Amino acid sequence: MSSDHLFDEATRVTAGDSRWQGRTSPDYWAFVGPFGGVTAATVLRALIEHPQAAGDPLAVTVNYCAPIAEGPFDLDLRLAKANRSSQHWTIELSQGGGDAATLATAVFAERRPSWSHQPATMPAAPPFDEVRRNPDTKMSWTRQYDFRFIEGGPRTNDGPAGAPYGAFSKLWLSDRKPRTIDMPSLLSMSDAFFGRVFHARGELVPFGTVSLTTYFHVSREELASENTAHVLALADAKVFNRSYQDQHGELWSPSGKLLATTTQIAYFKA
Amino acid sequence: MSSDHLFDEATRVTAGDSRWQGRTSPDYWAFVGPFGGVTAATVLRALIEHPQAAGDPLAVTVNYCAPIAEGPFDLDLRLAKANRSSQHWTIELSQGGGDAATLATAVFAERRPSWSHQPATMPAAPPFDEVRRNPDTKMSWTRQYDFRFIEGGPRTNDGPAGAPYGAFSKLWLSDRKPRTIDMPSLLSMSDAFFGRVFHARGELVPFGTVSLTTYFHVSREELASENTAHVLALADAKVFNRSYQDQHGELWSPSGKLLATTTQIAYFKA
Repeated sequence: MSSDHLFDEATRVTAGDSRWQGRTSPDYWAFVGPFGGVTAATVLRALIEHPQAAGDPLAVTVNYCAPIAEGPFDLDLRLAKANRSSQHWTIELSQGGGDAATLATAVFAERRPSWSHQPATMPAAPPFDEVRRNPDTKMSWTRQYDFRFIEGGPRTNDGPAGAPYGAFSKLWLSDRKPRTIDMPSLLSMSDAFFGRVFHARGELVPFGTVSLTTYFHVSREELASENTAHVLALADAKVFNRSYQDQHGELWSPSGKLLATTTQIAYFKA
Repeated sequence: MSSDHLFDEATRVTAGDSRWQGRTSPDYWAFVGPFGGVTAATVLRALIEHPQAAGDPLAVTVNYCAPIAEGPFDLDLRLAKANRSSQHWTIELSQGGGDAATLATAVFAERRPSWSHQPATMPAAPPFDEVRRNPDTKMSWTRQYDFRFIEGGPRTNDGPAGAPYGAFSKLWLSDRKPRTIDMPSLLSMSDAFFGRVFHARGELVPFGTVSLTTYFHVSREELASENTAHVLALADAKVFNRSYQDQHGELWSPSGKLLATTTQIAYFKA
């Protein structure tokens, strides 16, 4: 990884005796804590750097239990089960010996060659360079990314909607300072959508991701060979009900490979 | 729950001193272990019956680490974090004091009334009673369900495909012996699709779900008021690559309410 990128600083971990440590970054701050994508990426980076890790990241689920306060945090990484072809990890993030602030599970797997078939097709999109970058927002984490909306850009200045707007977005997404996409940054990008409820209602409301699950559909080698700093990102919601909304999304390489799929459930107040 | 249904027998748990116990059921057996949907449902049922549980099931992720052997198993349930509106649980299933065979996380939440909006629409389908039941297969778990395919039924007798078939299926799904759907059975049904790779290739190949995530989009009260024994179930896959495939699905009430969405990543050999 390039060592002078803010993303690499924000996801840096150090190995202690029994626990690993990280630290929140003011550069990736959201409403009431760090941007969840960077928290997820930090967890994944710690696993990748763990001496026992084998295989490629396949599936990551992150449950955001409580806001993480500014400052250092501990990561308890546990390899709960391993066999010849896969590893099952559990991760608990806490601060100052307190309760879990974030819980995660991850599966690593040997990505052996197999029959390959991609029924999904990449949606049409103008090239990255031809799409205008979204203006900056106040949240620091959003200023670390380039959001180039093709469809479903933010409507946050329209005020409350009468009939709901569409919840679908299609955009090119990249680090503001270009950085070749690796597994941790791909995971972070899978959480880098604006709340679907913001789009559907045309206004900001209290919002927080509760649980995020992302699957990687390429090996690290395949991802490296894509050698890209931006992905075509799609997100949509199916239902808003009883204070929670879903979100599902796709991250495509410019060459048309589905790199990752993601889903999350999030709290909203509206 | 009705106590004389095989599903209730298969998901029964008893509270021990520090651990909960369950037992595999020969009635819900898959290739090399219990049907994963019933394992997930057993975990959820234990949580629902836990004296500390509060709120409704919102999100469940189950990681299948190793086959569960026939017989009893232990469930370690831990409430890792709770606040006024949500609970974060971790669950570890093991046998005979060994390594984890299944790991899970679950979020319970107060489903407070809110703005409600369902952008997704229920696909058209003929009524349940007008669709023919799929013939039985050899696996015992499949005989506990009624699969009434509307589109994308199994092609397992066609032999290997040249060009891949479609991976999409639309079907009515119900317990073979009708049983009013509750949260545990809805969770089980979210794993009750045949492997997408079977559909796409038109043949059975070695297959196993690695990680399953299901979100509930209704409260228990809302689910009970649907008072249904069958759901319209949709499943599709986006990509098969390097020995793993994704699956995403939806479970709809006959009245047109999106009850749950689900996604999973599964191993295949082909």
